Amino acid sequence: MSEFDLIRDYFSDVGARRSDVLVGVGDDGALLDPPESQNLVSVMDTLVESVHFPRTSPARSVGHRVLAVNLSDIAAMGATPAWASLSLSVPHLDHDWLADFSAGFSECAELHGVTLIGGDTVSGPLIVTVHVTGHVERDNHVLRKGAKPGDQIYVTGTLGDAAAGLRAMTRGDGHSFLIERFLYPNPRVALGKRMGPLVSAAIDISDGLGQDLGHLLHASEVGATVTLEKLPLSTVLSSNFKPEEARYLALCGGDDYELCMAVPRGNVEDFEALCSSCFLRVQRIGKIDRTSGLRFTLKGKAHAVNVQGHDHFSSDT
Amino acid sequence: MSEFDLIRDYFSDVGARRSDVLVGVGDDGALLDPPESQNLVSVMDTLVESVHFPRTSPARSVGHRVLAVNLSDIAAMGATPAWASLSLSVPHLDHDWLADFSAGFSECAELHGVTLIGGDTVSGPLIVTVHVTGHVERDNHVLRKGAKPGDQIYVTGTLGDAAAGLRAMTRGDGHSFLIERFLYPNPRVALGKRMGPLVSAAIDISDGLGQDLGHLLHASEVGATVTLEKLPLSTVLSSNFKPEEARYLALCGGDDYELCMAVPRGNVEDFEALCSSCFLRVQRIGKIDRTSGLRFTLKGKAHAVNVQGHDHFSSDT
Repeated sequence: MSEFDLIRDYFSDVGARRSDVLVGVGDDGALLDPPESQNLVSVMDTLVESVHFPRTSPARSVGHRVLAVNLSDIAAMGATPAWASLSLSVPHLDHDWLADFSAGFSECAELHGVTLIGGDTVSGPLIVTVHVTGHVERDNHVLRKGAKPGDQIYVTGTLGDAAAGLRAMTRGDGHSFLIERFLYPNPRVALGKRMGPLVSAAIDISDGLGQDLGHLLHASEVGATVTLEKLPLSTVLSSNFKPEEARYLALCGGDDYELCMAVPRGNVEDFEALCSSCFLRVQRIGKIDRTSGLRFTLKGKAHAVNVQGHDHFSSDT
Repeated sequence: MSEFDLIRDYFSDVGARRSDVLVGVGDDGALLDPPESQNLVSVMDTLVESVHFPRTSPARSVGHRVLAVNLSDIAAMGATPAWASLSLSVPHLDHDWLADFSAGFSECAELHGVTLIGGDTVSGPLIVTVHVTGHVERDNHVLRKGAKPGDQIYVTGTLGDAAAGLRAMTRGDGHSFLIERFLYPNPRVALGKRMGPLVSAAIDISDGLGQDLGHLLHASEVGATVTLEKLPLSTVLSSNFKPEEARYLALCGGDDYELCMAVPRGNVEDFEALCSSCFLRVQRIGKIDRTSGLRFTLKGKAHAVNVQGHDHFSSDT
């Protein structure tokens, strides 16, 4: 089987049908007709086997996750995803693996209205890279900077499940709910594409809330105080871990792909209504303030937490 | 050193300054202001160490090549490149290597007016992926399909040098001109972005002229006859290889990143004038005809050539 057959079999006709894709997979590039008078958002993320996902991950999860982590970035920018390109480096042509990978990618793409428009398949170690382009009305985009003192800090969903799931996969002793949360993250696309007018800043939680909220605060040149009791934890996480361990997973675990947003006080009601209309649980966890840095309280008192998140290079240096 | 420091040091402020990049490297995604009323072209290519380039390749070459091979695809589509995203998987943080890689990427980006807008750096085997977005006036794009019987077939530059250079690198006995042609391909951006109104079809030559022209013919549902004496060969290639070996390298070698175009008879004069104005050597090598398949002539007689080009998967299956 040649690379051309491979592309034809597994990667043509993947995802939603979009009229703005004039030429998709199969030429030197894709030809696209972008919406008039909108800005574009461009994101790219890579997953490396044994670094970002364990070798035991099902192919369907790898296909789903590599798209989902990119859609999470698109959502954090307040944009609507449209077109995805995929670079797939695989050590050999395992048809079952490729069919499952393609199915996982397709499910996620179709759900979020994304079309696979091109990419590359190469022989190499298992590494997958996806680039996604989205669009956003001018001035409706959301950045990490822009949060102001007094803004309320919200997070979507529950935190820490994915990190607990990853730990469980490694040890082989975990709850399937947690493992599923790691394997099949649910990017908050529906909220992301509508939140632009209501939030002052946002970031997606990929490296752990502590670290990612830290980036938002740094970019916005503000600080924040987070109430540890307010961290949204799933029932499964709370009932399988001690409170301080669950909090640690929620703050530092990574791989959640939830959104963290700063919402001006005047927009809180509309923002919560928007989340309800997206059938999305959100939790207010703290407040932006003037003093730089990220502080925590527990039972009304200051509480120190070391919030180092994932850094796939920090151990090398 | 964390991933964040790495990005800041080597990958912020890379390439041309473009006013259409509203937010570049450093947020969850880049924010872009596309030109009004144009189509976009999206390409993505990956290079794997020891598959697409030898371990002895200088870092500057890897940085240059991974962008150049994508710009070559943009050129083949008749588009003007604008924005690049880079995924860099490296096994460890070697500052000299990263500085040289970044320099090679930057040189190529600046030369062609491209800005690095984002991407990802991860710990893994040496694999680099680049995505480039370009723009093209509506209806000025070029595809593989569209060639018609009677169209003249042109190629830019000279063919076979890169394949000879790669062979020389492996054996350690080659001419530096040939090695440079492999290490630092020169994508035909200046011609690509202006050729749209004059050519009926095009493809870039990455896998060898025989194979790539074959794709163009297949997509256009036509055939072609190529005169082997007309293949443009560099003086260095001609003087270091026997004629049949030089021809084989030119037809099947790959890695040239020249353009192959079909030009309707009525446009030949304007097309050659355009190439002159780009200071670009082009050679007419044959003609599109009705009979499907790719045929060759030598000394006026039919001549059989097996034109299997690169296929980094064909050996596995």
